Amino acid sequence: MATFGIRSNETFVLATTDRAVLDSKIFEGLQDDSTLHLLKQKHQALAAPTEENINFTPHYDTLIQSGTYEYWASRGQNPLPYSLAELIDNALSATARNQGVRKIEIRMMFDDTLGKPAVIVLDNGCGMTSKQLKNWAVYRLSKFTRDIGSYGSEDEGYVRPDPVHRSLNSDISFFGVGGKQAVFHIGDSVRMISKPYGSPDVHEMVISKQDFENKVKNKEDVYSGIIRNRKPGDFSHVKTNDERFLHNLILEESGKERFTAVVITGVFPDHIAFLKQDIEVWTRQLAEVYHYYIHGVNGKEMSDSSADSDCHPEIKIMISLRDKSPVVMDLREVENDIQTLYIKLAVDTFEFKATTAQDGGTVDGLIRYHPFLYDRETYPEDPNAVQGPDDEDDGDNEPGVLHQERKKRPIFDCFWNGRLIPYTTVSEFDWCAQSKGAKELAECYSRISGVLFTDDRFPVSTNKLTFMELELKLKHRDTFFTRILKGQKQRGNIQKDFTQWLKNCHEKWDKQVKFLNFKKTITRTEL
Amino acid sequence: MATFGIRSNETFVLATTDRAVLDSKIFEGLQDDSTLHLLKQKHQALAAPTEENINFTPHYDTLIQSGTYEYWASRGQNPLPYSLAELIDNALSATARNQGVRKIEIRMMFDDTLGKPAVIVLDNGCGMTSKQLKNWAVYRLSKFTRDIGSYGSEDEGYVRPDPVHRSLNSDISFFGVGGKQAVFHIGDSVRMISKPYGSPDVHEMVISKQDFENKVKNKEDVYSGIIRNRKPGDFSHVKTNDERFLHNLILEESGKERFTAVVITGVFPDHIAFLKQDIEVWTRQLAEVYHYYIHGVNGKEMSDSSADSDCHPEIKIMISLRDKSPVVMDLREVENDIQTLYIKLAVDTFEFKATTAQDGGTVDGLIRYHPFLYDRETYPEDPNAVQGPDDEDDGDNEPGVLHQERKKRPIFDCFWNGRLIPYTTVSEFDWCAQSKGAKELAECYSRISGVLFTDDRFPVSTNKLTFMELELKLKHRDTFFTRILKGQKQRGNIQKDFTQWLKNCHEKWDKQVKFLNFKKTITRTEL
Ligand SMILES: Nc1ncnc2c1ncn2[C@@H]1O[C@H](COP(=O)(O)OP(=O)(O)OP(=O)(O)O)[C@@H](O)[C@H]1O
Ligand SMILES: Nc1ncnc2c1ncn2[C@@H]1O[C@H](COP(=O)(O)OP(=O)(O)OP(=O)(O)O)[C@@H](O)[C@H]1O
Ligand SMILES: [Mg+2]
Ligand SMILES: [Mg+2]
Repeated sequence: MATFGIRSNETFVLATTDRAVLDSKIFEGLQDDSTLHLLKQKHQALAAPTEENINFTPHYDTLIQSGTYEYWASRGQNPLPYSLAELIDNALSATARNQGVRKIEIRMMFDDTLGKPAVIVLDNGCGMTSKQLKNWAVYRLSKFTRDIGSYGSEDEGYVRPDPVHRSLNSDISFFGVGGKQAVFHIGDSVRMISKPYGSPDVHEMVISKQDFENKVKNKEDVYSGIIRNRKPGDFSHVKTNDERFLHNLILEESGKERFTAVVITGVFPDHIAFLKQDIEVWTRQLAEVYHYYIHGVNGKEMSDSSADSDCHPEIKIMISLRDKSPVVMDLREVENDIQTLYIKLAVDTFEFKATTAQDGGTVDGLIRYHPFLYDRETYPEDPNAVQGPDDEDDGDNEPGVLHQERKKRPIFDCFWNGRLIPYTTVSEFDWCAQSKGAKELAECYSRISGVLFTDDRFPVSTNKLTFMELELKLKHRDTFFTRILKGQKQRGNIQKDFTQWLKNCHEKWDKQVKFLNFKKTITRTEL
Repeated sequence: MATFGIRSNETFVLATTDRAVLDSKIFEGLQDDSTLHLLKQKHQALAAPTEENINFTPHYDTLIQSGTYEYWASRGQNPLPYSLAELIDNALSATARNQGVRKIEIRMMFDDTLGKPAVIVLDNGCGMTSKQLKNWAVYRLSKFTRDIGSYGSEDEGYVRPDPVHRSLNSDISFFGVGGKQAVFHIGDSVRMISKPYGSPDVHEMVISKQDFENKVKNKEDVYSGIIRNRKPGDFSHVKTNDERFLHNLILEESGKERFTAVVITGVFPDHIAFLKQDIEVWTRQLAEVYHYYIHGVNGKEMSDSSADSDCHPEIKIMISLRDKSPVVMDLREVENDIQTLYIKLAVDTFEFKATTAQDGGTVDGLIRYHPFLYDRETYPEDPNAVQGPDDEDDGDNEPGVLHQERKKRPIFDCFWNGRLIPYTTVSEFDWCAQSKGAKELAECYSRISGVLFTDDRFPVSTNKLTFMELELKLKHRDTFFTRILKGQKQRGNIQKDFTQWLKNCHEKWDKQVKFLNFKKTITRTEL
C-alpha cells in the first residue's frame, strides 16, 4: 500500500479496474494484490495506463474434464475401450525394458462385497519414483518437456528408440495427457500406487474431483497435493469400507520388486454397465488395438511359424471382472478381432515400404489376399460394423445404395508405434486401386485387406483416435513406394509388381466354379 | 526445520524421498519445502510413512500445445479454418445482443511493410472487463464453471438461451478452451485487446510462448501476467517495429463503444502459405460452417423470400488479406459452399423433428430433393472432395470400386447451435434409406441431401470437429421422428410420409427422356 497526497478540498473515488466504485461489499470481495484506481470521478479517463497483476492458472477441469469430450463414438462403437487403452499404453511403455514377462492386468472390481466399483490397471513395469509420480499428475508434461532430473533420476532427457520392424517400439507416451484423460473419463478419482525398482518405499497419491472442489472452497492452491511414502504392504491409511479391495491389492505388493497400480474409483454407472454387459465387444476392441504387441510382429497364427518376432519378452494383458459371474481372460485368447480374421483368412501377402519426402518418416505396409472359394468370398466381415437393420439386404451392385458396403470399406488399418489408431483408415493408394487396374482383375481388388505401420513421425491427435494427416502425406506426390520381398527392397514399379502379385493370387488361390464348354441341353425328366 | 536428537554414537544419512543420499550437488538442487528422510542407512525401511507436499500445476503447454494435436485433417482438408472458426464462434457469442449489425473481421496482415505477419480477429461485441479478460486466459474455465462475479459483473451464472428454430442461438461457447486452442494453433503469441460497453478503459493482455519460457527460466510463477488498462487510442506501449500494424488498430479504437481484438503473431509459416494461396478454399469452408448464421435460418437464396429469419440484426463476416494483391470480401459472397449449392439445386424440401428419449434434446431436420433433369443428375458435386486422380473414372455401378462415390456420400450435414460440426455426418435413417424403400423409387433416394440442426444437449468434442455420439443417439430405437409441414407437427408414420413425398418429387420434378412405345426400326441411309 502506497500513500497518496490528496488535498482536503478534493473529492475522489476508489474503483476496481472494472470501474466498480468501492463500497464495503466490493471491498470484502477484493483479492489480495488487487489493482485499484484512484479517480476524481467514476468515468474519468486514465491519466496514465495502469498495470494489473493477474493469475490465470488453468481450472482444475483441465484434468477432470480432459477426457470427457475427447473419446467420441465412431461407427457406433463405444469409445470407452480407447480410454482404457491409454492406461495400457502407459503400462507397455513402463514394461518395455522388463527382463521377464511383461504383465498388464485390468481388474474390474464390481463385486460390492469388496467395496465400491473400481477399475484397476496394474503392471509390473519400471514404476515411478516420487518425483516421477508427481510428474504423472502434471498435465502436458511429456517426455519431451520434462526437465532433466536435478538429482540423478532416470528421467534424463528423451532418447528416441532405434527403429524396429513395424515400429513396435513400446514407446507409446507422447503428450503428457493420456493417463489423466483416461482416468477421469472413467471415474472421478484416481489413486496411483507405484514402486520403482530398488526403492524400499511405495509411493502413493490420490487425485480426485472432490479434493479439487474442497480446495477451491477452502481457497487453497488447487494443484497442491500429497504423496505418501510407505512400506510395501502397509494399508493402515485405507480406512473407508468403500475401498476394501485395496487391502488385498496392497498386500500383494510385498512380493513385487516394482509395479504401478492405477486405481480408478467413482466409476460412472454407464461405464460399469458397458464393461459388464459388453465384455466381448470391448475386449475385442482392445485385442485389435494391441494385436501386434500381443501376438508379435507377424500377428496371431503367424507367431509360431516366425522367428523374427520383436516381442520377446512376452506381453500378457489379462482382463478380470469380479462380479456375480466372474471372468478372467487373456487378450491373447480373442479369436475374432479383425486382425486375427484378416490373418487367418489370408492366403498371400504383399509387403511394401512408403517413404515420405519431408518427415523422414517410414511406413511399413502389408496387403493380404482373401480368395474366392467355390461359392463365396472369404473376405472377413467387419466385427465392428454396427449390425443395423439395413445390413441384411446388402447386394453388391445395387444402384443407389447409400451406405458404404462391406467390400467397399477402406483397405488399410493404421498403426502408430505398433498400436492401432482406431478412427483413421486409408482407403487405397493409386497403385492398388481398382479404378487403375486391369479390367479382368476388377473383382480381385475387393479381396484385399491391408495394414500400415508408422512411427511417431506421423503425429496423432492427443486422444490417439486419429492420425493428424497420414492420408494427406501418403498421397503426396513425393511419397515413394517400394515393394519388399523377403526383407529386401525391390527396384521397379510398385504398381506393376502389385498387379502381377494380384494376378498370381487370382490364378493360384481363387477357386471359381466355371462352366467351360457348352455341350448340350439336358432335360432331366426324373425331376 | 525441526530439530532431531541424534546420539553421538549413531551414524545416519539424509535422503530425498527417492532415496538419493544428500550431497552438496543434490542439496543445491532441492526445492523449497522438500521432504527429506533421516535414515540409519540408505535402504532402510521407513519406520513410519511420510507425507510429502507436491505441486502439480499444469505445464504451460496446456495452453501453447492445446491446439497443436487437435485440429486434424479429414477428407484431405486442411483444418486451419476450423481453428479460425473458434474465434468466429467467440465473436458470434459476444455480438449476440448487439442492437445494430454484428460485425466480425478477420484481417490477415501479411504485408511486411506493416510489421511481422499477424492474424487479427475483430468484433464489435460486448467486449471484456479486465476480470473477464483474465478469465479468457484460464484454461477450461467455461460459462458453466465461472464463479459468480464478486462485484456486479455481467458474469453472474449461466442461463441457457430459449430454444429457437434450428438452434441458431449464437451460444457457441462451451468448454473454455476454444480461444486458446485456436490462437496457439495459429501462432505462438496472442495480444487480447478489449473494451466493454460503458468502460472508459481499454484492457490489454499478452500471452506468449516466449513469456512462458522466460518465466520458467526465472523461476517465476508461469501463470502470472499483467493486464494493461489504458485510454483508447493510446499505443505508447507498442515499441517494436514488428508490430507497427498495431498503431492503426489502436487508433481505430477511439471511434468504438466496445470491441474485442484478438491479435495473433508468430504465425506459423505453413499457415501463412495456406491462408495466402488457398483463400478460396478456406473462405468456402468458413462460409459452410456459418452458412445459416450468415444467410439466416433458411439459408442463402431463401433469405429474401422468407420472413422468419432469426438473424436480425445482420451478421457480417469480413475477410481481408493485406499482401501484394490485397483481398477484401464478405463471407456472404461465397457462392460455392455446399449448403448454397444444395439450396440452389433443390426443388422441394421435407422437414422433420427428431426427439430422443433421454436427453430432452431436439433435432430439426431437413431433406432436399435434387431432380434428374433431361440428361443429368442435378445433385451437386461436393466442393470439398479431394480431386484425386481416381475421381475421373467414376462410373456409378462399377463393381468393386473401393472409394466412396459421390452419390453414396452421407445424406446429412450436422449443425450444433447453428454452426457446422464438419467431421460428423449421418448417412441416413431407416425411413429414408433406399434399402427400405420401394424399388421403383430406388434412384430417387440418391437425389436427396439433408441437414440436421441440434442444440448443445448433443455434445461435441472440444475442438468442435465431431459430435460425441449423435448418430448412436438418433439411431436409438426410442428416437421419435415427426414430419413438420408448414411449421406443424404431423401425426402419422414418417416413412410413409417421406416415401409419398419422394414419389411426388419424382413425378413432379424428374424430367427423364423416355422412349415409350416402340414403333419400328428405321435405317438412316443418309449417314
Ligand atoms: N504405468 C506406469 N508406469 C510407470 N510410469 C508411468 C505409468 N503410467 C504413466 N507413467 C508416467 O507418467 C507420465 C504421464 O503419463 P500420461 O499417460 O498422462 O502421459 P504420457 O504417457 O507421457 O503421454 P500421452 O498423452 O501420450 O499418454 C508418463 O510419461 C510416464 O512417465
Ligand atoms: N470476442 C470475444 N468477446 C467477448 N468475450 C470473449 C471473446 N472471446 C472470448 N471471450 C470470453 O472468453 C471466454 C473464453 O473463450 P474460449 O473460446 O477460450 O472458451 P469458450 O468460448 O468459453 O469455450 P469453447 O471452448 O467452447 O470455445 C469466453 O467464454 C468468453 O467469455
Ligand atoms: Mg500415456
Ligand atoms: Mg470459444
